[in-house]
Amino acid sequence: MHEFRSVSLDDQRGELVILDQTRLPNDVVYLLLSGTEDIWEAIRSLRVRGAPAIGIAAAYGAYLAVRNGGAESPEAAAALFRQAKQYLETSRPTAVNLFWALNRMEQRLVTELRPEARPAPDARSLAHLIHALKEEADSIRDEDAHMCRAIGEHALSLLQRGWGLLTHCNAGALATSELGTALAPIYLGTQRSYHFKVFADETRPLLQGARLTAWELSEAGVDVTLICDNMAASVMKRGLVQAVLVGCDRVAANGDTANKIGTLGVAILAEHYGIPFYVLGPTSTVDLKCPDGASIVIEERPGDEITTKWYGSRMAPQNVKTYNPAFDVTDASLITAIITEKGVARPPFAASLRELAQ
Amino acid sequence: MHEFRSVSLDDQRGELVILDQTRLPNDVVYLLLSGTEDIWEAIRSLRVRGAPAIGIAAAYGAYLAVRNGGAESPEAAAALFRQAKQYLETSRPTAVNLFWALNRMEQRLVTELRPEARPAPDARSLAHLIHALKEEADSIRDEDAHMCRAIGEHALSLLQRGWGLLTHCNAGALATSELGTALAPIYLGTQRSYHFKVFADETRPLLQGARLTAWELSEAGVDVTLICDNMAASVMKRGLVQAVLVGCDRVAANGDTANKIGTLGVAILAEHYGIPFYVLGPTSTVDLKCPDGASIVIEERPGDEITTKWYGSRMAPQNVKTYNPAFDVTDASLITAIITEKGVARPPFAASLRELAQ
Repeated sequence: MHEFRSVSLDDQRGELVILDQTRLPNDVVYLLLSGTEDIWEAIRSLRVRGAPAIGIAAAYGAYLAVRNGGAESPEAAAALFRQAKQYLETSRPTAVNLFWALNRMEQRLVTELRPEARPAPDARSLAHLIHALKEEADSIRDEDAHMCRAIGEHALSLLQRGWGLLTHCNAGALATSELGTALAPIYLGTQRSYHFKVFADETRPLLQGARLTAWELSEAGVDVTLICDNMAASVMKRGLVQAVLVGCDRVAANGDTANKIGTLGVAILAEHYGIPFYVLGPTSTVDLKCPDGASIVIEERPGDEITTKWYGSRMAPQNVKTYNPAFDVTDASLITAIITEKGVARPPFAASLRELAQ
Repeated sequence: MHEFRSVSLDDQRGELVILDQTRLPNDVVYLLLSGTEDIWEAIRSLRVRGAPAIGIAAAYGAYLAVRNGGAESPEAAAALFRQAKQYLETSRPTAVNLFWALNRMEQRLVTELRPEARPAPDARSLAHLIHALKEEADSIRDEDAHMCRAIGEHALSLLQRGWGLLTHCNAGALATSELGTALAPIYLGTQRSYHFKVFADETRPLLQGARLTAWELSEAGVDVTLICDNMAASVMKRGLVQAVLVGCDRVAANGDTANKIGTLGVAILAEHYGIPFYVLGPTSTVDLKCPDGASIVIEERPGDEITTKWYGSRMAPQNVKTYNPAFDVTDASLITAIITEKGVARPPFAASLRELAQ
């Protein structure tokens, strides 16, 4: 099993320990961050990434602002908290989990500040408040770990020993507290000698598969083979893949699923070769208010991610047009099952997802 | 129409003019090569690439060895030719067209050396021989140009104005004398105001689509959009592609087609979306002795093409396993038609190809 943690708290030193994902896979560098500005920068610069990991980092960040801030009363502590929260919310303004985690921390703060919850005198009350904030951040992390584990167990029940598995992008331990979502059954299976053979798509243009998935699976001793995205068909044709496991950014009420660009293509290949295609994610990504994939707006990103980023020199002619959607939508009809912490949803998804997500 | 030529002869100066493809797309550099060593290096280092272009470069290279060699008799010229031929054959020992072109040049040499073909005296006979070798190399180039044009005309008859077209890798003007194979109908259509909208897959790991196809189509004023390989499904789903055009390295008797890695995946996506998938190439790539795709050996190349090449720093963990097949085989059942200079073969290919290729 892997030894790293994407985010963890060193409470004795009052530091957030972040594995700097921008330095992977070449350097394994842990950042020890005690100041809110540094934690803001780590989220902003994608040193910590993945919705759950960002939420956990922000929650601990708000806690540390209070713990390290030297407040002398609960009211002063609350002021420090709110200042940190407001600031951390600007680090990645489109990250839903960031707001969710910080709001949850604030609710706890409000609860603890109620007169009936406060032990006297103020000094004891302040220590109590700080402890409560740590407890809440720990809970956010622990719930994520439990959720990942539950997703992993449900998914593992669908897999068999010795199978070849293909995954796309990184929905792994680096993006969460511990096991990841799409990679959770791989880690659990590895612990139980399932001897999976994993193929990781490199995932252009940002190469999360090469830089992150291949790295974290290697670290955990998983048998992983890196391929270019356009080699997935060959690997399937050779009979080397018995199931596809991917994460999800948003699941519509009918089962249509938005995920990293390239997921749709993999799903079509899997259908062609009769390979089960599994989407793994928490029920919190199921958006019952979103009727179908057509309602999901796809972010288009700058073309230099395709033409220039990572390269020693530009790899395409100047001024060439590019199309760089960050996500695509996999039709529900291509999905064998959607696997959540609450269980496995099967078609027709409109019914099975509603049942699970409620 | 594009202004460049991948290979051409400046006979007055006794130089082969090669567009250095290793410098594209950032620099457009023409090399003026008069020595056999320099031409050998240009083929070896992929400055000129693509089976037809290599054959043409080698043919002119053998001609120039004689033209520039200062021989004083037809026999001395023949010795120079054979020396150059032997040497050029070592530049890329797996390039079939290299051998084919040089053998054809040698046949012409042998023909011209027959006593009954030789005008007297020797000086006139030598000039005659040199002229014949140039004529033969010109023929190799002209036949390639005609073949590309014929493929383009046959293919264009299947396309409609305003269509979106998707192509993979580079089967274009850079790889041939002039129009390319898969790109030939795009050039012909552009001359005739077909207003195609072309999507070019970047074609990992060697990025021929980004570096070469996007460049040559841009140069010709074609409306081209560069995408990552894993975005082809999104583009098709959005209804932006009405036909796929790809080249081929080898076509088996049953129509199974080996081409650049990633072609198979594109074919499966095209079938899923009901988009015609066209393979374009000369009948010389149809190998009637090869029964089917299972008989085609696929070259596997070093993993550093995936993990390291082009990048500023390594993009995958040290020692990670990779799988890097250079080609894949598209099943005949996924191919709408195979378009050659002699016409359009449709399923069942076993019959239609035999008819065309004979």
